[in-house]
Amino acid sequence: MPHSSAGPEIERLIALLSRLPGLGPRSARRAALHLIRKKEMLMVPLAAALGEAVDRIVTCHECGNIDVSDPCAICAAGGRNQNSICVVEQVGDLWALERAGAYRGRYHVLGGVLSALDGVRPEDLRIGRLVQRAKEAEITEVILALNANVDGQTTAHYIHDALKESGVQITSIARGVPVGGELDYLDDGTLSAALKARKLL
Amino acid sequence: MPHSSAGPEIERLIALLSRLPGLGPRSARRAALHLIRKKEMLMVPLAAALGEAVDRIVTCHECGNIDVSDPCAICAAGGRNQNSICVVEQVGDLWALERAGAYRGRYHVLGGVLSALDGVRPEDLRIGRLVQRAKEAEITEVILALNANVDGQTTAHYIHDALKESGVQITSIARGVPVGGELDYLDDGTLSAALKARKLL
Repeated sequence: MPHSSAGPEIERLIALLSRLPGLGPRSARRAALHLIRKKEMLMVPLAAALGEAVDRIVTCHECGNIDVSDPCAICAAGGRNQNSICVVEQVGDLWALERAGAYRGRYHVLGGVLSALDGVRPEDLRIGRLVQRAKEAEITEVILALNANVDGQTTAHYIHDALKESGVQITSIARGVPVGGELDYLDDGTLSAALKARKLL
Repeated sequence: MPHSSAGPEIERLIALLSRLPGLGPRSARRAALHLIRKKEMLMVPLAAALGEAVDRIVTCHECGNIDVSDPCAICAAGGRNQNSICVVEQVGDLWALERAGAYRGRYHVLGGVLSALDGVRPEDLRIGRLVQRAKEAEITEVILALNANVDGQTTAHYIHDALKESGVQITSIARGVPVGGELDYLDDGTLSAALKARKLL
């Protein structure tokens, strides 16, 4: 990255900030200056929040979610449906489903998807633990909420095979026209999927 | 910002990250997840770099630059031209000029520009100190490198008046066609300025 003529301490801060997704070298410089300008209001609390995150955030051994407790707040919550597990790729997907508020069961975060290109094998993902969990007596359904791309679907097929003998019902979230979607602007794949999955009115 | 269903510690980290320029709520969530995933490689060093910045970064009382020492490395450097002061609005502008490597004198960072709209008055900027510095025996030239917009030019005029009796030469960086600029794509203001400032070949 280009020299910013600041001291090595500021250079280092800029270099680290530029490694965050969404920030390049130029916006990292702007972010560093903003932090230095808002020292008490932003830099001090951000340093503290990061320090606390370093010390306290752990991965839930049960579902793979991240939280400050293990098991995580969702696994430990009493009021949730204990009969179904929703399988997602990443913690961000879990957050998205929770924001939507459409699901009140348990989760399982794989930590990625199978990918020949990136060399991700089944043993690199949290699949073994999922197979164990699916055998628990109260589990009746495993919902696959993986991305609708090649790697996501390859992973869905692999998990479907791995879970076959557990006897649980395996479902996948629906493909179709997104809410508010206009047909003219949708890609062919979505249109074909929506047409194939048509329902009786 | 929308609930991300992470614990309050992660929520707080996301909220702070979303206040950085260039990051919104969605990219702040991605940044937080990225930090948590790259804990040892990124989150730990970033927390340390921020903590060090909080403790060590100060504003140079001489020129307004930021550094870990006061006077800053540029003010303290022996090899630089001590006869001219280049006036800029923000530390980022100083960095830009240093990156370009086109100037080897001293600087003065105003900390903003006069703005009736934002209520920025002369006493809110580092103008008094500039007038003092311009009176130092070795200073022969003050170069105004302010942005080419209304507020920047208002500020340039104000400084020009404030420095009149110091007797130093006051110049402003040139306006014209940027290097590599094509006339067809330039705005009218730049074209007019370039034409007015034409030079004998």
